[in-house]
Amino acid sequence: MIALLTDFGLSDTYVGVMKAICLRLAPGVPLVDLTHDVPPQDVASGAWALWTAHPYLPPDTIELAVVDPGVGTSRRPVAIQFASGRIFVGPDNGLATRILASDPPIHAIVLDRPIYWLDAPYRPPGSDPIATFHGRDIFSPVAARLAQGLPFAEAGSSFNPAELVRLDLPAAVQEGEVIQAPIVAVDRFGNLITAIGPDLIPALFAAPQIHAEVGQQIVSERAATFGAGPEAIPFWYRDSSGYAAIAVRDGNAAQALGVGVGAIVRVRFSRQAANQE
Amino acid sequence: MIALLTDFGLSDTYVGVMKAICLRLAPGVPLVDLTHDVPPQDVASGAWALWTAHPYLPPDTIELAVVDPGVGTSRRPVAIQFASGRIFVGPDNGLATRILASDPPIHAIVLDRPIYWLDAPYRPPGSDPIATFHGRDIFSPVAARLAQGLPFAEAGSSFNPAELVRLDLPAAVQEGEVIQAPIVAVDRFGNLITAIGPDLIPALFAAPQIHAEVGQQIVSERAATFGAGPEAIPFWYRDSSGYAAIAVRDGNAAQALGVGVGAIVRVRFSRQAANQE
Amino acid sequence: MIALLTDFGLSDTYVGVMKAICLRLAPGVPLVDLTHDVPPQDVASGAWALWTAHPYLPPDTIELAVVDPGVGTSRRPVAIQFASGRIFVGPDNGLATRILASDPPIHAIVLDRPIYWLDAPYRPPGSDPIATFHGRDIFSPVAARLAQGLPFAEAGSSFNPAELVRLDLPAAVQEGEVIQAPIVAVDRFGNLITAIGPDLIPALFAAPQIHAEVGQQIVSERAATFGAGPEAIPFWYRDSSGYAAIAVRDGNAAQALGVGVGAIVRVRFSRQAANQE
Repeated sequence: MIALLTDFGLSDTYVGVMKAICLRLAPGVPLVDLTHDVPPQDVASGAWALWTAHPYLPPDTIELAVVDPGVGTSRRPVAIQFASGRIFVGPDNGLATRILASDPPIHAIVLDRPIYWLDAPYRPPGSDPIATFHGRDIFSPVAARLAQGLPFAEAGSSFNPAELVRLDLPAAVQEGEVIQAPIVAVDRFGNLITAIGPDLIPALFAAPQIHAEVGQQIVSERAATFGAGPEAIPFWYRDSSGYAAIAVRDGNAAQALGVGVGAIVRVRFSRQAANQE
Repeated sequence: MIALLTDFGLSDTYVGVMKAICLRLAPGVPLVDLTHDVPPQDVASGAWALWTAHPYLPPDTIELAVVDPGVGTSRRPVAIQFASGRIFVGPDNGLATRILASDPPIHAIVLDRPIYWLDAPYRPPGSDPIATFHGRDIFSPVAARLAQGLPFAEAGSSFNPAELVRLDLPAAVQEGEVIQAPIVAVDRFGNLITAIGPDLIPALFAAPQIHAEVGQQIVSERAATFGAGPEAIPFWYRDSSGYAAIAVRDGNAAQALGVGVGAIVRVRFSRQAANQE
Repeated sequence: MIALLTDFGLSDTYVGVMKAICLRLAPGVPLVDLTHDVPPQDVASGAWALWTAHPYLPPDTIELAVVDPGVGTSRRPVAIQFASGRIFVGPDNGLATRILASDPPIHAIVLDRPIYWLDAPYRPPGSDPIATFHGRDIFSPVAARLAQGLPFAEAGSSFNPAELVRLDLPAAVQEGEVIQAPIVAVDRFGNLITAIGPDLIPALFAAPQIHAEVGQQIVSERAATFGAGPEAIPFWYRDSSGYAAIAVRDGNAAQALGVGVGAIVRVRFSRQAANQE
């Protein structure tokens, strides 16, 4: 399976061309779109999106991921093999950062062998190849050839996975009874997904009472499930990504609270019920 | 074939994850996106969209449909087998209402057998499973297993299809020479699709003259086909769904007339030409 | 492979229905979406989009292309076989114009044989067939049958490809040291793609200095690749389509310059460095 993730959108034919190349070079390979609506050139958002899908992909999946503001510069085109068996093909610009933290890389290569790139009859005539659209000219052909059985080590020159570019991503920080965490994503429903992950969630949901500053408002309600949340009031729930999130049922939390990706949420909680309110 | 319909949009990886699960559990199954742009949590719009596609799907299609504001509450996850052979997998919240009216259900089950849900290695670690994202955790795995040959009756406990939740949907009503009907959908072109269906269409188009109040304006023109409509003036035509609709050629009827889903259209018609104008 | 391009968007089920029909009549045929976001009824934009993908499609691809404001009028439904082997199925309204200029047509047919259209059990009951949605009722079934092996000449009546409708598309014009060219497309990143193609690009990029009027501003910077462009300033680069384009790195050229499709760009260049500035 080849799973595609880009910031190309679906209004142009960029994604369709990548798929046509994949299917020509690897006939019958299943293609799955993870998303193509990563905000343009926003590598951090792309890293989050890719990471939310990664655990659900079969172990032989090739992730063809292109959010690539540095195309045509010295940033390297790479492939990464993870301990799980999955393979990433894309730019070495941090797009794999979140995956690297949970699924260790066991092999990395630079895609420096033009013989595995887009074959000559399909290259734009008379062009300096490979300057603008590596998704088409390098990443798709290599992903397809790997899906078709090309040995990983054959597709490029090996290097130490420790050298892979990693983004310095904001994290949730707990100090005593306070957690500070950035919002890392806003989904289609306006739900605000925070960086408060599985390690901190139990404390958050077990505390008898919480007091969270989100934008100019306070969010203190919590629900065991999305559907069990209160009507019309923002509440915390455990998102399907495994992270703590804030929603408004039948509404849009991002709009209601006036915040978005990058905003900092400050949660004060106590293990015992507050003795004043 | 598995045909997917959701309100998840394509900006997040929700749909991609569902597809990856389907392809892992049912390798090679063809996947078709009906739409993922149902307005968020709008079950009635989802019911319309699903119904517009239903008659064109092969008889062995599994419809994997998730518009599910009640996820995590007591609403039941179900599968429905229709007389045509098609199968619906999704929430029991009325999303299948319009299909149920035209393709009788012959078997209904509650999806209460976790053995057929998302398999353990792919469940989010340490989570209360199944609280937030039934599309991933229940509906996709069950749809895939049915596509792969799991007998329908084996996937859950049977119940009487008469108990399935049905929405109370607005209908077109004729009284003498007047039809009142709600607008049930607005398509990408801004065409207004009304609840005036095959039973009332002949009268509407055969009447020598009609006088329809739509928002603040009157729409009296009719055309045999969309392309034969007048320039710049709103007109009635028979939509590809089989329902009477209003369009503006080279324009957008919803914008031009300032109405949308739920607005009531009042059509006065006569079988003989009006003797005054 | 069937490659789909329409202006139907993805909010309605139009595209999903077309795909379901394709897969029923040609089981297992790979389907690739080129785009469904052609601006509604904008045949010229559709012609550009189709043409950007055409060279990358395998030679046995069937292009199922529907941007069809004239559906239901006398415009003909057609199929075209090109010298490359690829086949176009869609309306004879100029949508294939740009392809016709680079990949000569060797055979054209009118799709006038209802036996190859949508089969009776799937036709809307009681309807005047074929009035509104040729994508569903004619083009998809014929494309699927061709993919399934129906001989091209069997699907309709031959006519002289010279009679195919062609749009009169604006071109880049060079007079001395000046090129005037329209903007032909704006991609998702806001990049402005001009009609300055492979024939004029060398002059544009080889000239020691250029002075281009774009909207109310001047764009004089050029970069060998997108990624090598200057920060924050609009610059020329060679787009992946092979045409000269204008971008703003980490920005949106269309917004920054306030222009869109159809705007005229006027480039003055000299083969020697200007002796005044």
